[in-house]
Amino acid sequence: MTSTATALTIVPSYLEGAWWTPDSAPENAPIARDANTGEALAAVSAEGADLAAVVRYGREAGQRNLADSTFHQRALKLKELAQFLNGRREELYRISAQTGATKIDNLVDIDGGIGVLFTFGSKGRRELPNSNVVIDGPLEVLSRDGSFVGEHLYTRIPGVAVQINAFNFPVWGMLEKFAPAFLAGVPSIVKPATPTGYLTEAMVRLMLESGILPEGAIQLISGSARDLLDHLDYRDLVAFTGSASTAKVLKGHPNVVFGGVRFTSETDSLNAAILGPDAGPGTPEFDAFVRSVATEITVKAGQKCTSIRRTIVPEVLKADVVAALSARLAEKVVLGDPRAEGVTMGALASLDQLADVRAAVQAMLDAGGELVYGTLDSPQVTRRDGSIGLVESGAFMSPVLLSWDDPDTREIHELEAFGPVTSVIGYRSIDEAIRLAALGAGSLVASVCSNDPLIVQQLVAGIAAHHGRVLVLNREDARSSTGHGSPVPHLVHGGPGRAGGGEELGGIRSVHHHMQRTAIQGSPNMLTAVTGVWHPGADRNFDAVHPFRKSLAELRIGDAFGSGLREVTLQDVTDFANSTGDTFYAHTDAEAAAANPFFPGIVAHGYLLLSWAAGLFVEPAPGPVLANYGLANLRFITPLAAGDSFRVTLTAKQITPREDQDYGEVCWDAILHNQNDEIVATYDVLTLVAKTQDGVDASQSALLTQ
Amino acid sequence: MTSTATALTIVPSYLEGAWWTPDSAPENAPIARDANTGEALAAVSAEGADLAAVVRYGREAGQRNLADSTFHQRALKLKELAQFLNGRREELYRISAQTGATKIDNLVDIDGGIGVLFTFGSKGRRELPNSNVVIDGPLEVLSRDGSFVGEHLYTRIPGVAVQINAFNFPVWGMLEKFAPAFLAGVPSIVKPATPTGYLTEAMVRLMLESGILPEGAIQLISGSARDLLDHLDYRDLVAFTGSASTAKVLKGHPNVVFGGVRFTSETDSLNAAILGPDAGPGTPEFDAFVRSVATEITVKAGQKCTSIRRTIVPEVLKADVVAALSARLAEKVVLGDPRAEGVTMGALASLDQLADVRAAVQAMLDAGGELVYGTLDSPQVTRRDGSIGLVESGAFMSPVLLSWDDPDTREIHELEAFGPVTSVIGYRSIDEAIRLAALGAGSLVASVCSNDPLIVQQLVAGIAAHHGRVLVLNREDARSSTGHGSPVPHLVHGGPGRAGGGEELGGIRSVHHHMQRTAIQGSPNMLTAVTGVWHPGADRNFDAVHPFRKSLAELRIGDAFGSGLREVTLQDVTDFANSTGDTFYAHTDAEAAAANPFFPGIVAHGYLLLSWAAGLFVEPAPGPVLANYGLANLRFITPLAAGDSFRVTLTAKQITPREDQDYGEVCWDAILHNQNDEIVATYDVLTLVAKTQDGVDASQSALLTQ
Repeated sequence: MTSTATALTIVPSYLEGAWWTPDSAPENAPIARDANTGEALAAVSAEGADLAAVVRYGREAGQRNLADSTFHQRALKLKELAQFLNGRREELYRISAQTGATKIDNLVDIDGGIGVLFTFGSKGRRELPNSNVVIDGPLEVLSRDGSFVGEHLYTRIPGVAVQINAFNFPVWGMLEKFAPAFLAGVPSIVKPATPTGYLTEAMVRLMLESGILPEGAIQLISGSARDLLDHLDYRDLVAFTGSASTAKVLKGHPNVVFGGVRFTSETDSLNAAILGPDAGPGTPEFDAFVRSVATEITVKAGQKCTSIRRTIVPEVLKADVVAALSARLAEKVVLGDPRAEGVTMGALASLDQLADVRAAVQAMLDAGGELVYGTLDSPQVTRRDGSIGLVESGAFMSPVLLSWDDPDTREIHELEAFGPVTSVIGYRSIDEAIRLAALGAGSLVASVCSNDPLIVQQLVAGIAAHHGRVLVLNREDARSSTGHGSPVPHLVHGGPGRAGGGEELGGIRSVHHHMQRTAIQGSPNMLTAVTGVWHPGADRNFDAVHPFRKSLAELRIGDAFGSGLREVTLQDVTDFANSTGDTFYAHTDAEAAAANPFFPGIVAHGYLLLSWAAGLFVEPAPGPVLANYGLANLRFITPLAAGDSFRVTLTAKQITPREDQDYGEVCWDAILHNQNDEIVATYDVLTLVAKTQDGVDASQSALLTQ
Repeated sequence: MTSTATALTIVPSYLEGAWWTPDSAPENAPIARDANTGEALAAVSAEGADLAAVVRYGREAGQRNLADSTFHQRALKLKELAQFLNGRREELYRISAQTGATKIDNLVDIDGGIGVLFTFGSKGRRELPNSNVVIDGPLEVLSRDGSFVGEHLYTRIPGVAVQINAFNFPVWGMLEKFAPAFLAGVPSIVKPATPTGYLTEAMVRLMLESGILPEGAIQLISGSARDLLDHLDYRDLVAFTGSASTAKVLKGHPNVVFGGVRFTSETDSLNAAILGPDAGPGTPEFDAFVRSVATEITVKAGQKCTSIRRTIVPEVLKADVVAALSARLAEKVVLGDPRAEGVTMGALASLDQLADVRAAVQAMLDAGGELVYGTLDSPQVTRRDGSIGLVESGAFMSPVLLSWDDPDTREIHELEAFGPVTSVIGYRSIDEAIRLAALGAGSLVASVCSNDPLIVQQLVAGIAAHHGRVLVLNREDARSSTGHGSPVPHLVHGGPGRAGGGEELGGIRSVHHHMQRTAIQGSPNMLTAVTGVWHPGADRNFDAVHPFRKSLAELRIGDAFGSGLREVTLQDVTDFANSTGDTFYAHTDAEAAAANPFFPGIVAHGYLLLSWAAGLFVEPAPGPVLANYGLANLRFITPLAAGDSFRVTLTAKQITPREDQDYGEVCWDAILHNQNDEIVATYDVLTLVAKTQDGVDASQSALLTQ
């Protein structure tokens, strides 16, 4: 076994657009080792890298090269990247086994990481506009005459996103931070953890090989981040995942405390799983609970910031839970080298980690915890060659269950053993369960396992504010659930207090985290200019050409159509009632209608108005407008009585060309006025429109049915 | 003039539900003085107050007493409070004059503060549910079979909101923080600034006198906050407004850096106003720009964190701007005691402030600034009795314009003179204007003054990420604009970098800031239980009674109605086309329809389906359902061809009783299926429903037309 860094190859960094390694690693540089065998793999050092230049390169080249693309274009690149990486997983699995990861662990880390790219590739195109600014929330009218309005805009931060990752998810941990930063148009500087950064390096190498990413979108520091934070300011963001102690150092950096660096951290927390009082042995919830706890402490050998550290159960069910958990672990866990057949749980990431976990468990035993399953001794394991025995140089540890008499013992709620360990404690009332869960002082996630809606409502209301995520497990979702321990890209990951106080993921929310929200005030015309979206009150262009005759190539926001007035007679209302079957008294019974507080007498159906409005604005012959796929935000403002008339004005509000289709979406502002120019109704009409007058290929019909 | 604190009355605090003052103020306690005359008004001390008990009281009594109300109930209380205070403004104006505030200043501080209560009183009822949890964003379906779903919930933080305010807006500054905290259900602990806290105390006294607020909703510390932060943790929030130097001390507190206290700060910044190259003398934009700069540096004697410190103009227009600004100031500013007739600009808040501002201006002169208007000498002022002369004990200062040759001089962009002072600098290109604005390193607000949409688009895109708010000023909104310096409750207040990196206001966003966002995962039934809102996939109750026959007293979420199938014939489609005028080819021309990529041939109008669906679910006779006031989120999924049939299922999704009306809103989930159980369309139907079978008073018809 090589013992000094100087004789080893060095994990390369990717800086300022080129691969880079120091000429030699310092004598005392950290060494990445195979977690199962202890074999030295490489030295880890970025000694001598000019990190100020790295930041500058991101802010300049990175920002510039990402500026030319829209959200949709970047989302498409994420999808292409995911497809490319999907075909290269085997290479990554081989390297990943060296970190102690089993096949299931790889599903979480590698496939899960690629899954994040797919999700953002899809969400970016479904939920963001095809432009560079995002409007946040509704328009606020700030003057009586409507000439002064305001709204909120997100624009990307003008700096870099520094991503500092933990050792436990070298691939997923990087990609869940990279994907939203990239989608927002912000260059990433990735700093993986020393023990497993060689896997991150392999992944970054594939990403660059793909040729899909613009230069400057990603840089990689394989080594200590040293003075990196010295070069950051309010334009930049740091997203940290790791231990609370490292977070403390970073959070205390003057540029974070005083310099306005946007800092989000996600640290280990003492996550709880609560078994409801209704969920005794024999119920599907009891079984789901036991399966979940056993899984959470053995996947990644319990090295997950979301692992279940506190198993909170009704006091009367404590013995049953311990027995069932012990049986499950004994049955399912085969400890050993992940490259050997049949192994279900691998080594911890390093011998240092093993020593830390053992010390934490020992402190818990000293504080009153009772060891009811497992051992602190070195376990017998399945070696790579299939033989069974001790591997002193491998970081193996048996799963451990601790049972406690006093559920308030401080160590249960404050001491984290970052391995295959959980504490089982009992509660005597729902209020006590809530109180115990809150003793974690802020966690990433809690499970609530019950089939009683009232109990679930009470528990969730009580613990939600102390958690970033709550999983409700019952017979209905036990099989389909993605599990307590797995953050999904759609939902936020992070939690208050001890969990770091940050947020990542959460779908497009994580893109917003890479942007500055700015309130913009001005006239409707100026807000139209700034956002590229037509605003009510802004100028309309009543061209001679009906806007429905314009393809996306010709259509501009503000292009409008105004119809003439059409009168609605009592006979029309009666006919509509008869043909549709909508004989609501407001349309059929003059006396009853007049008694209704909102109607003057018989009024036209709202749906009649909508249908007739379509008749007023339609262009019957085939043309670029392909379909009306929906309608939004409809409000009926002034009822229309028999004898009244109305007209419709339609204005192109937002145009969203599809990058990979011959068409796009156009949202039209529709407003109905009566003969007195009072507003009758307002809504948005959603259409699909061809990019050119040539129309679209009929094979593109997939979208409509999605 | 009294010179020691011991002989003065002490400004009272309101702690743990009772008014409290120390037995005596320490010899060296700060003294609040009349800003215009220097007269000692009161000593400021909360020496000996048990701040740990204050925090505990908020977390316990405050949280408990706010838990019983919903968002709507608290919003109504804010409205009532605003109405009560509106009638007591004269008392506050009298006290406010002692701070140096003119009538216009009072409009901003006192009327503006009451206006914030009105806005949140209204927004809370229009934009929040009538419950205690807020759903954030769309539902995410996390399993193929829909049995596992997720979404985000806001629940109030389980601690206190500590609100530390600046001296310049003793009323508005308190209320803009209190209103959203109260609406969220979080108890406030208010700590005003020493020089003007006596006005805050008067306002809190009126608020308590009103009897509207539940006990524990507000506490007031009139004096140093001392060890207050020592008692806070991740459950609590600190909202700070004030100087960057004080922010620095607070941000560096271990409970903030490491303890997870939620901290938001809003500090002074070097806000810019940019005049577009198109906006030369003679244009309405030039005039609006000059008016705006002159106003911003004289209102509150320039003691506003949003004041315009940097006046950035085309180099060629610099002389014109200086001349016009000088003329405007000479014409409009009458300096003196606000209680004297005709005075338009009062004193700074204290002699200490005056000394600070003079020192800052002197440093800027030393750095190359040229004094082109005003003086650093003590100015002649209008005294309270109308006479004119020097008032050495009053904190008066003349407006000051500085002109700079080198626009990059560090002092322009870093040194804040917190008084009636601005620097005029020139730019030579749009890019340079953007670069100069960004040198402020993060500001609360910038103005862009131009009538050219392209210039506005370019400037806003360039500076947005460096600002919390951008005001676009042109001829269209020059008169209706609420101004550069005035945050409005609808839009966020705060900015990145030097501006503190925080956010306040922004409508309901500021309520969310007082809540924890938690991702909730589970089955549709469990998410329904947790949120009180019916979720697709959850159980429906197909009662024998049609849900439209149920009043709010009887209706429960999940109550549903399912219709039978109705067939759509080609004749129906043709008739509908003819009667509505919607003769789009997809409904009338078989060949053209089949050539459309999304349709199998002639299809029924979407509006026909909507109209018929209403016919299928309607209950014709008068009953609790009063009106269908709108429709949302309509998507047509599967087109319906002639000969197909469809049915509708309607389910009560969300019920929002109105606190002050006999009715409420019910949102119904509507889903159309065809004869093959494929989804044809989905949407929400929005109705008004009476609270009881007795119906509603006809005088309540106001709502519909709002």
